[in-house]
Amino acid sequence: MDKAQLEQQYEQIKAKNLHLDMSRGKPSGDVLDLSNALLNLPTAYTAQSGLDCRNYGVLDGLPEAKTLLAPMLDVGADKVIIGGNSSLQMMYDTIVRAMLLGVDEESEGWSKGGAVKFICPVPGYDRHFALCESLGIVMIPVPVNEHGVDMDVVEELVANDTAIKGMWCVPIYSNPTGVTYSDDVVRRLARMKTAAKDFRLMWDCAYSVHVLSDTPDRLLNVLDECEQVGNPDRVYMFASTSKVTFPGSGVALMASSRKNVDYICKHMSVQTIGSDKLNQLRHFAFFKNFSGITAHMKAIQSKLAPKFNIVFEFLERELGGQNLGEWHAPKGGYFISFTGNHGTAKRTVRLCKDAGVILTAAGATFPYGKDPDDSNIRLAPTFPTMNELEAAMEVFCVSVKLANC
Amino acid sequence: MDKAQLEQQYEQIKAKNLHLDMSRGKPSGDVLDLSNALLNLPTAYTAQSGLDCRNYGVLDGLPEAKTLLAPMLDVGADKVIIGGNSSLQMMYDTIVRAMLLGVDEESEGWSKGGAVKFICPVPGYDRHFALCESLGIVMIPVPVNEHGVDMDVVEELVANDTAIKGMWCVPIYSNPTGVTYSDDVVRRLARMKTAAKDFRLMWDCAYSVHVLSDTPDRLLNVLDECEQVGNPDRVYMFASTSKVTFPGSGVALMASSRKNVDYICKHMSVQTIGSDKLNQLRHFAFFKNFSGITAHMKAIQSKLAPKFNIVFEFLERELGGQNLGEWHAPKGGYFISFTGNHGTAKRTVRLCKDAGVILTAAGATFPYGKDPDDSNIRLAPTFPTMNELEAAMEVFCVSVKLANC
Repeated sequence: MDKAQLEQQYEQIKAKNLHLDMSRGKPSGDVLDLSNALLNLPTAYTAQSGLDCRNYGVLDGLPEAKTLLAPMLDVGADKVIIGGNSSLQMMYDTIVRAMLLGVDEESEGWSKGGAVKFICPVPGYDRHFALCESLGIVMIPVPVNEHGVDMDVVEELVANDTAIKGMWCVPIYSNPTGVTYSDDVVRRLARMKTAAKDFRLMWDCAYSVHVLSDTPDRLLNVLDECEQVGNPDRVYMFASTSKVTFPGSGVALMASSRKNVDYICKHMSVQTIGSDKLNQLRHFAFFKNFSGITAHMKAIQSKLAPKFNIVFEFLERELGGQNLGEWHAPKGGYFISFTGNHGTAKRTVRLCKDAGVILTAAGATFPYGKDPDDSNIRLAPTFPTMNELEAAMEVFCVSVKLANC
Repeated sequence: MDKAQLEQQYEQIKAKNLHLDMSRGKPSGDVLDLSNALLNLPTAYTAQSGLDCRNYGVLDGLPEAKTLLAPMLDVGADKVIIGGNSSLQMMYDTIVRAMLLGVDEESEGWSKGGAVKFICPVPGYDRHFALCESLGIVMIPVPVNEHGVDMDVVEELVANDTAIKGMWCVPIYSNPTGVTYSDDVVRRLARMKTAAKDFRLMWDCAYSVHVLSDTPDRLLNVLDECEQVGNPDRVYMFASTSKVTFPGSGVALMASSRKNVDYICKHMSVQTIGSDKLNQLRHFAFFKNFSGITAHMKAIQSKLAPKFNIVFEFLERELGGQNLGEWHAPKGGYFISFTGNHGTAKRTVRLCKDAGVILTAAGATFPYGKDPDDSNIRLAPTFPTMNELEAAMEVFCVSVKLANC
């Protein structure tokens, strides 16, 4: 098809006057409906301990909430802190605490020693990058690869720069690539020598239960690995039920070594009296146990997998074998990462926008919003209906082709 | 009554083997029951705008939640940010933000310029002081008086020390004294010259709707006053429904100038996608409007006022006219401040504890837990039942007398 034909096709699509938003990883209404029973819970306000959950207390979460959610991070309930409605907020608070006060009683605040740097696997999650940028943390991009992240580069960097205090990791069904870190990558992250003694891994397991395949990925337990190699306090793990039940009204959690948990709780006790226990009770009443969560995720999978399949069908049929870009079918998560030819991402996103389809901004998957190759686009197929998604993918594929003309 | 008789009386009480906790300002079960309808709300998940509150979005709160709660701070809804479940957390986050990033685009982080100091009216709220201590903020105590706080001292301090970046205020039904700031005090706080350009008032209106009298106190609107005298950005105001509905499952809010609100929201957008909208909707459905809140507080008043009266009856009958201490009946709030003779507070609290009655620790109402006179004790009468409260007050009064022997 030549350029004139493509332009004609694009104009025809544009005439449909679409208004579709594929920019964020939001659940669709029919997925949210699967959790509607939460709206009528809890039917009682007493915790298993007999505690009246309507009143103050319980800094780090109800024991039943810890037991319910700890398997999301593959850790023991004793290493879990239950938070409010947002794992992003727990990450922010964790970094802010480290910046001002340090990561333990022995160290000083990261911000006391001059520049603070973080390693950022790219493409990655824009909110992680925005958080660093807002706090003045210098971001060092390191390429994601099929095993997780290029560990040769990471090891070299952290071994030689005391200013590198942390690294973002979305280790399972990564945002946006969908890759899961291999055992080797996890082990190398656990044991690598870091110039900064107060270096920390920010282990964001946002999608640990978001399976899209009947042969899900397995992620090695990083907390155990860190402990075994003598770096027991290296990792902070995070998760939430935001994309499991109701985003904004879910329950977030983090996990770490007991030493870290104790330190964090000490400072948290000054920040809050505790998170919303009735919402913890609500989620416990809804799921009852981790099997309840995995069964629920199966139901979500049955809604999401067809949407992901539409995207792959379009990409294969319209763009396959033409050197227009690369993509992979992840076994879980919320996104598809499309890597087009150099210099085409911004133009593609712009063409889509002009035709009424909002995508995640080109560059958003890179620190400071700058994709050096201008090639990566994050596709978020979860929110639109099937019909909308087909319309959007038609726009996307024509836009990619046009951007390559 | 001589010491031997008092000791005999104390031993008799001790033999009752009491286990009563009056240490914290917690609502009692019958007060919580007044909000039980919340447990079956919301019945719908759609906001007035049509937004699906089960999904992501709305950083600063639903418009209907702002409209509902803004009168708690006597401000327009456009100056309100709705938070999570904890106003303490909003205060902590506000101070941490100022420490790291500054209070506006023009200023640097408070922590960048060396020592940071806060003025702390005493006796005051222990959690405010713990927050400062945890963040390394140096606390300067200034005496509370019948008009609020000794403004001559405050004005002198802030005029001459650029390190003084903030001041804690519980301006209505103060914790623990129950005093409400006079118009003159509010005006002087609004217009006083501060050596630090980035000075801020932390205006904690925790008890603005917690009326205990049919002739409630009136608090001048500090935001208006600040604006009128050319210090529009001086004050951060805070409140929550923690002691209105369910502590831990309530809704917190803050208010400030539009400039401050915009700045805070910019940074908050990196920290969270938004607070729990279903809980906002739940509270809106429960109260419907501010009249709903005041009517609810009337019902709470009818439960609390008799408890406060028991305390006053005991204090008058057992301790009145004997130079054993001073107290005042507040027109609202959650506490009674008892100021005994110098050097008696710790001993009194210890005697109570040994007789099975836990009070707030002596010294807790002062920075670093150090009451220089060892005289102030905070009484929290809200949680015990009437019978328990009578038993506790019997212990307290005997303990005060013994501590004075």
